[in-house]
Amino acid sequence: MKTYFDCIPCFLRQALNAARLTTADIKIHENVMRKVLGRVYEMDLNQPPPLMGQQIYRIIREASGDSDPYKKIKNKFNTFVLDLYPEFKKKITTSVNPFETAVRLAIAGNIIDFGVDAEINTSTVYQVVNQSLTQELNGSIEKFKEAVLSANKILYLGDNSGEIVFDRLLIEQLPYDKVTYAVRGYPVINDVTMDDAVATGITKLVTVIDNGSDAPGTILDECSDKFKRVFHDADMIISKGQGNYESLSDSNKNIFFIFKVKCRVVAENTKSALGSMVIQNNK
Amino acid sequence: MKTYFDCIPCFLRQALNAARLTTADIKIHENVMRKVLGRVYEMDLNQPPPLMGQQIYRIIREASGDSDPYKKIKNKFNTFVLDLYPEFKKKITTSVNPFETAVRLAIAGNIIDFGVDAEINTSTVYQVVNQSLTQELNGSIEKFKEAVLSANKILYLGDNSGEIVFDRLLIEQLPYDKVTYAVRGYPVINDVTMDDAVATGITKLVTVIDNGSDAPGTILDECSDKFKRVFHDADMIISKGQGNYESLSDSNKNIFFIFKVKCRVVAENTKSALGSMVIQNNK
Repeated sequence: MKTYFDCIPCFLRQALNAARLTTADIKIHENVMRKVLGRVYEMDLNQPPPLMGQQIYRIIREASGDSDPYKKIKNKFNTFVLDLYPEFKKKITTSVNPFETAVRLAIAGNIIDFGVDAEINTSTVYQVVNQSLTQELNGSIEKFKEAVLSANKILYLGDNSGEIVFDRLLIEQLPYDKVTYAVRGYPVINDVTMDDAVATGITKLVTVIDNGSDAPGTILDECSDKFKRVFHDADMIISKGQGNYESLSDSNKNIFFIFKVKCRVVAENTKSALGSMVIQNNK
Repeated sequence: MKTYFDCIPCFLRQALNAARLTTADIKIHENVMRKVLGRVYEMDLNQPPPLMGQQIYRIIREASGDSDPYKKIKNKFNTFVLDLYPEFKKKITTSVNPFETAVRLAIAGNIIDFGVDAEINTSTVYQVVNQSLTQELNGSIEKFKEAVLSANKILYLGDNSGEIVFDRLLIEQLPYDKVTYAVRGYPVINDVTMDDAVATGITKLVTVIDNGSDAPGTILDECSDKFKRVFHDADMIISKGQGNYESLSDSNKNIFFIFKVKCRVVAENTKSALGSMVIQNNK
């Protein structure tokens, strides 16, 4: 997906939110804003938005001297959802269709995205999870299930911390010996890294690899050779979240994009309403 | 008032909305966005936001070749409120306190601001007018009335088209032989110019001058000598809207700022909630 003009104000809003989260020093806020303005001024709009996201959060880390400004938030949401794991697990196993319930919860968990909303809180997460059980889906769970059952190598692209516990709940409903879970190579926003995979028990369940990149998405050119091999070898890719969608929507691999629609640009691009639950195959 | 960092994403959002309103040509949209990014990158944040507003709408006019892109919108809202003039006039004259009712309607009319909201429509205007009759005010109408009664020369700074009809209704409750009404010198967003003053009958009621500037506010250094003389001679200034507030809040003249709070930055600066009705004296 290309970058829309509407992404431009959003980049600057994100940069300001992230700068404020990192430090109260307004000189750093101004420094970040001017640098981001300069970078956006020069950007190629044919590139996907996560490429600019990558630049923005590099600027934030450099200006603040903090290599992982979202560390506390990531830990908080991992702990919050882990504490609810038994309740959610029961919700899945006692439901009429555990696979479908697990998919719905995995999509709901995608709400924990600090790139889109700097004020997301635990009660919103709980509310979105409850809505997700009955909300109409944009896409077919049956088609997704068929693809899962016929796949030999599934690559599951994680997105955010906290959300990763919902990924674990879904993976527990998949033939997980076939699944590899991928995290970002370096901290960016509240995206999952290997630390989160360890902390939430995913590493005990499936093979976890990092993609070698600090983009808030999956920009293949930026990923490690090892990741690219796993990506190309997979016969099914489960891609969580908007950032992965934005960077892979033009790929010719067999990808199922599952996410919550959290901004107008992705709503327009996927022909979905804001707040929709999407499960879309690019084939 | 200085420019807040939060104004930066808003400038870019405004530029995009205005570019889209002016033309469907996405090459022009991109041209506008890059130019505005470059201009914002260089801006002095100690200047008030309307100075950047002025730059943005100059870029829009230049890129589109349209010297008055909001002309249709301005005419539409002038006509809409003029059609309701008899109804609003009756609301004022039959109320317990006609002066207060006229002030409330004049503040409500300030909602017609295409800089803040590109999707404002006539039903919203009607709704805001009805709310305004009972909504709590941030400020004192009594103090405002005392100032009006003791003033010899009142300069009334208009803001938006459509809203100007509400200004007329308020001016009809003032000692209007003492009032001069000011409009912008050139078209910018949906701000009032001499055309609107003529079309809505203000010129038949009071002396109308233009300020010689194309800023969406009152930046004195940019105004004509004639306007500056009237400004300095006035012993009371009634300043409508956020743009006039943003550009004059640090003035040492006796100014009553009356407006609807339509963005978080002005809300913070005036210690008001979003949506508040403000009537503030800077003395």
